Amino acid sequence: MSEQRIVRPAPISGFPEWSPRIRSVEQRWLDHIRRGFERYGFSSVETPSVEALEVLMSKGETSQEVYTLQRLQADPKDDGDARLGLHFDLTVPFARYVAQHFNDLVFPFKRYQTQRVWRGERPQEGRFREFTQCDIDVINIDQVPMHFDAELPRIVHEVLTGLDIPAWTLNINNRKVLQGFYEGLGIGDPLAVIRAVDKLHKIGADGVRRILVDQVGLSAEQASACLDLARIRGTDASVVGEVAKLGVSGELLSTGLDELGYVLDELADLPSGSVVADLSIARGLDYYTGTVYEATFDDDPAYGSICAGGRYEDLAGQFIRRRLPGVGISIGLTRIFAKLVAEGRITDGRFCPTDVLVAVPSDERRGDALATAAVLRERGFNTEVYHQAAKIGKQIQYASKKGIPFVWFPPFKDEGAHEVKDLTTGEQAEADPVTWRR
Amino acid sequence: MSEQRIVRPAPISGFPEWSPRIRSVEQRWLDHIRRGFERYGFSSVETPSVEALEVLMSKGETSQEVYTLQRLQADPKDDGDARLGLHFDLTVPFARYVAQHFNDLVFPFKRYQTQRVWRGERPQEGRFREFTQCDIDVINIDQVPMHFDAELPRIVHEVLTGLDIPAWTLNINNRKVLQGFYEGLGIGDPLAVIRAVDKLHKIGADGVRRILVDQVGLSAEQASACLDLARIRGTDASVVGEVAKLGVSGELLSTGLDELGYVLDELADLPSGSVVADLSIARGLDYYTGTVYEATFDDDPAYGSICAGGRYEDLAGQFIRRRLPGVGISIGLTRIFAKLVAEGRITDGRFCPTDVLVAVPSDERRGDALATAAVLRERGFNTEVYHQAAKIGKQIQYASKKGIPFVWFPPFKDEGAHEVKDLTTGEQAEADPVTWRR
Repeated sequence: MSEQRIVRPAPISGFPEWSPRIRSVEQRWLDHIRRGFERYGFSSVETPSVEALEVLMSKGETSQEVYTLQRLQADPKDDGDARLGLHFDLTVPFARYVAQHFNDLVFPFKRYQTQRVWRGERPQEGRFREFTQCDIDVINIDQVPMHFDAELPRIVHEVLTGLDIPAWTLNINNRKVLQGFYEGLGIGDPLAVIRAVDKLHKIGADGVRRILVDQVGLSAEQASACLDLARIRGTDASVVGEVAKLGVSGELLSTGLDELGYVLDELADLPSGSVVADLSIARGLDYYTGTVYEATFDDDPAYGSICAGGRYEDLAGQFIRRRLPGVGISIGLTRIFAKLVAEGRITDGRFCPTDVLVAVPSDERRGDALATAAVLRERGFNTEVYHQAAKIGKQIQYASKKGIPFVWFPPFKDEGAHEVKDLTTGEQAEADPVTWRR
Repeated sequence: MSEQRIVRPAPISGFPEWSPRIRSVEQRWLDHIRRGFERYGFSSVETPSVEALEVLMSKGETSQEVYTLQRLQADPKDDGDARLGLHFDLTVPFARYVAQHFNDLVFPFKRYQTQRVWRGERPQEGRFREFTQCDIDVINIDQVPMHFDAELPRIVHEVLTGLDIPAWTLNINNRKVLQGFYEGLGIGDPLAVIRAVDKLHKIGADGVRRILVDQVGLSAEQASACLDLARIRGTDASVVGEVAKLGVSGELLSTGLDELGYVLDELADLPSGSVVADLSIARGLDYYTGTVYEATFDDDPAYGSICAGGRYEDLAGQFIRRRLPGVGISIGLTRIFAKLVAEGRITDGRFCPTDVLVAVPSDERRGDALATAAVLRERGFNTEVYHQAAKIGKQIQYASKKGIPFVWFPPFKDEGAHEVKDLTTGEQAEADPVTWRR
């Protein structure tokens, strides 16, 4: 054994890593999500992990903590690579991609993109420095039909329902409703109100009221009306009537209510309560212009959003002189998955994908074992051959430790029958590799 | 349209990115490779993209150009993240992973790992700054059976054969043969000879001879014998006899020849010429200790290795006081794929995964279209609904541009039959969404 210095390996906080059993579940989730997106015809896009800093910053200073790259052995005279950074979301890279590949795309362009993103944040619960997001967006030139505002939450609903996760709710709102309502109240700075109401779940109604009156300068009546709006929740288009009852009107508000009602009607066939109109949801400050989405766990809303998205007016105006409105949702895969891992809820993973271990009783029989394994593989069974001649008990133990469900015994002599042992039931029976079914 | 400054999006050299059609083929390749690894029971491992610098450097100074991370808005007093770097291969992270998760693993541990890696190199043909590698390794405590030295190239052979790539050869050698042969010639510094012979394909036999005589200090006879060895190539174990004919002997040489012969015998059932013993292959200088592998394109060997690997004595000695020998191969996915893309050989990609576009002749019929699509999706067909009521010709044109093979027409009135048009043949026929087959 070498006498070199030992570097003790340790996890780096904020950079999750899974044991093989957990990883197998993550992989199953990723397959399931991809399948869910492809069922609706979305194209796969991947972009480099790295963008030019001027691209990352093209929307102006970002509040995100960007990681820039530095070559370890960089020539001090050459800072070429210092202008590169890891992407902090998949929206900016997608916008750059669409502008760059504009002539190769067919519009409306429906894409999904599942990749790691990086943020140089201080790690805390539910926050990572490297994590995987699964984004879907539909963009089009000049206008995107409203029916996508309903199709996207439907896809996300199907996808999340197929994963074994705790109860969650997809909350929907419409920014036009908020802005129109505040304008209808005669409020001059609706964005300031949105920013305050956005804190409702953190600081409560009284806290928001104080900000609205003391800082935004609203009257007590205006503030009360804003809080009345934020209190409205409902599982169907009846929320539109609830808003109307508050006695505020205006063109933008009407449009927003029509859109919100349309989306809720389109999703009326989903199980009641899975999609909820929540008039307190605002999502971001400048980007979204219509429908907004935010999903949270029912029993832990404070954990934050596990999916989020909405409709925007223009994806890539900073890169191309074409107006490309769209609507998108991002599933926070790592946020969801890591929480379940931490809570010990990911229990059905497999250490390896092997269906059958072919035993090797002696070196002379290894050729048989290899041939048997080749037949089983050809038939679609993931198959290992035990790595050396050994006692059968030891080989069964290896299969058992790895969670391999079947151990196969080729004939121990030139003549004789194959047998297969089901480690789940303990039963052993004759079998033919050409016809066996599990 | 906004008047903001346009940032012209441009590719960053060394960071490949594909259009959706090309990406669909890359995804098919990745699925195929994963399937090939899982058939043999290999477990999936993924590690963070980032390691502590002391982990990346744990084998001593690396010649690789490592990218370190810097937070853009870093507090100058806090250089916590400056000690992080992007991994430059998957071997160092795997070694760290094995040491860290040692008690969760079952040995021999067979893992595959397909991830992006980063190198701050000056980009040139076939060299990337971000690229995907597909690694398989088998490691064990204290010893790894030789039969894995044959299983790994068999897996790689199966995997690459299933991809539509130009003819390639997997060259095999054994470091013990080289070292034993040179020692048998009485050469004191066999590594210096290996380093010189490694340049054979670049500088030719006369160039190598000059180095061996002038720099390494070999006699003309020793140099000739070394070049005679490097000239030996063969598709089967007869190469062992060829080496013996050179009249050099020794224990290490014998062991190496036994191992090389064993691997070639085990692979004798593969198509002739797919695996070739090539006594000039050396691979790296210190890491590999037995079998070594290197695959190149037959018509462009100068492009460099497309797969490489070998047997090593100890994977993770810098992290854990257990000896973990192993054998592994890495497939250079991006190297192979990017060459084919550049040569225009990736031609069978699809813009989207959609099987069927359901047409929407009028807004009133959109409900029917959605219901039909739901049935088709449930039956496993990837299905889009056209995004708005429009002329049928326009909808067919959209499907045609996206390469969607079938357009579905729900009945235009409440009663009537569904019809489906095959865009490949142009034929249109009645069909039932519940029973239709493509």
